[in-house]
Amino acid sequence: MTEIENKEKNILIVYAHPEPTSFTGILKNQAVEFFTQQGHSVAVSDLYEMNWNAVANRTDFTKEVKGFFKLQLEQRQNTLIEEIKIEQAKVEKANLVIFIFPLWRLRLPAILKGWFDPTPWSYQWPKLYNNGTFKEKKALLCVTTPEEKVVFSERGLFGNISKITYPLTHGCLYFCGFNILPPIYHYSINNEESQEKSLKAWGEKLEKAIDETPIEFNKLTDYGEGGLTEGKKTDFERIGEYL
Amino acid sequence: MTEIENKEKNILIVYAHPEPTSFTGILKNQAVEFFTQQGHSVAVSDLYEMNWNAVANRTDFTKEVKGFFKLQLEQRQNTLIEEIKIEQAKVEKANLVIFIFPLWRLRLPAILKGWFDPTPWSYQWPKLYNNGTFKEKKALLCVTTPEEKVVFSERGLFGNISKITYPLTHGCLYFCGFNILPPIYHYSINNEESQEKSLKAWGEKLEKAIDETPIEFNKLTDYGEGGLTEGKKTDFERIGEYL
Repeated sequence: MTEIENKEKNILIVYAHPEPTSFTGILKNQAVEFFTQQGHSVAVSDLYEMNWNAVANRTDFTKEVKGFFKLQLEQRQNTLIEEIKIEQAKVEKANLVIFIFPLWRLRLPAILKGWFDPTPWSYQWPKLYNNGTFKEKKALLCVTTPEEKVVFSERGLFGNISKITYPLTHGCLYFCGFNILPPIYHYSINNEESQEKSLKAWGEKLEKAIDETPIEFNKLTDYGEGGLTEGKKTDFERIGEYL
Repeated sequence: MTEIENKEKNILIVYAHPEPTSFTGILKNQAVEFFTQQGHSVAVSDLYEMNWNAVANRTDFTKEVKGFFKLQLEQRQNTLIEEIKIEQAKVEKANLVIFIFPLWRLRLPAILKGWFDPTPWSYQWPKLYNNGTFKEKKALLCVTTPEEKVVFSERGLFGNISKITYPLTHGCLYFCGFNILPPIYHYSINNEESQEKSLKAWGEKLEKAIDETPIEFNKLTDYGEGGLTEGKKTDFERIGEYL
């Protein structure tokens, strides 16, 4: 292999916005172009374009579920439908997964939430955190909002944005092993000047993403019977420092 | 009016679980029965049964959206489809809204998230928090999980459950004015002994819900240009005390 081939990475971009020409869509395109030009392999899951079924249900499985339906039990049967298996294969192949989406009233779009619900790979107790299935992979959040940065600060009107996205970064992603890169938040995206700044910041973030040092969360061994070892910061506190 | 009629309240139960005979479903039935027997008026939005469309999109509006689609703009046009208007009317009528759902890997079911996405009433800036549209209403979360309580404590393996549900309680509900009652969390729900305890605790909670004192969150006037007034606890800290 040549030096260039050695360095090639598999990038998966999971993107959720109903309007392709939105600023969020522009950020997605920028990421695709950047990694493609750098010689990496880029896959995109454009959830709105794919018309992704956001609702975890019996229909997620090829085998007919008779009687009591328990999502977690079904997920262990390896009978997931093809659409979900394709997404799983994408994740398994990826070195870096980037999530690009807007915050709607402090929440991610349900369609993105629904991308996580039926995935059994994210729940393989006790293979979690630093021992998780995906401990060799990295994940990055790229979040857009029309709101100003100040409202999402620690003492801002809405509260610390990195604590608000904790259920995704920590609950979904670190849970199954992903190394979480410091998220990038694009504020005031309806303002042209802010958009320019955002595009520049995003370009710089993309440049360093593959080699960036992830957030240092607590390891499994940091927890005992009574919870986190005394004196250690909780992961809410740790991620809350990334604003 | 008689004394009984004076005390009658409108209760809305928003319930999200794919399996009607699940323990979560049993808790829902218990709530319906309790309030009905007490002479209150009970409406239920059983999101799985309703096959609720979780994905906010152009199809949420009766008017064809040509060109650029911006959810927040469309929501101001009063062209929402009938299904969504019905849900809005239920909320407008309710004195108390109870959300009953399982936590799936630290997240609410996407179908419940999708119930919030298309609702314009939740975003009427600057009518928010204690000045919000629904400041006369109360909201209660009833959350189920097979996990043990200890993992959801402040220093537990998953982190503080009330901080994990903050985007819902504070981000969606307090945002538009709801008074948030201390949530009730049902742990270890696959364990029979825990189920018995849960049913009892839920019964007691239902008894007091209508008159219970809500969580004291910061008011709009507690925020200045630089954020929350010095010395005041953040709302993340406040809700984090309810475990």
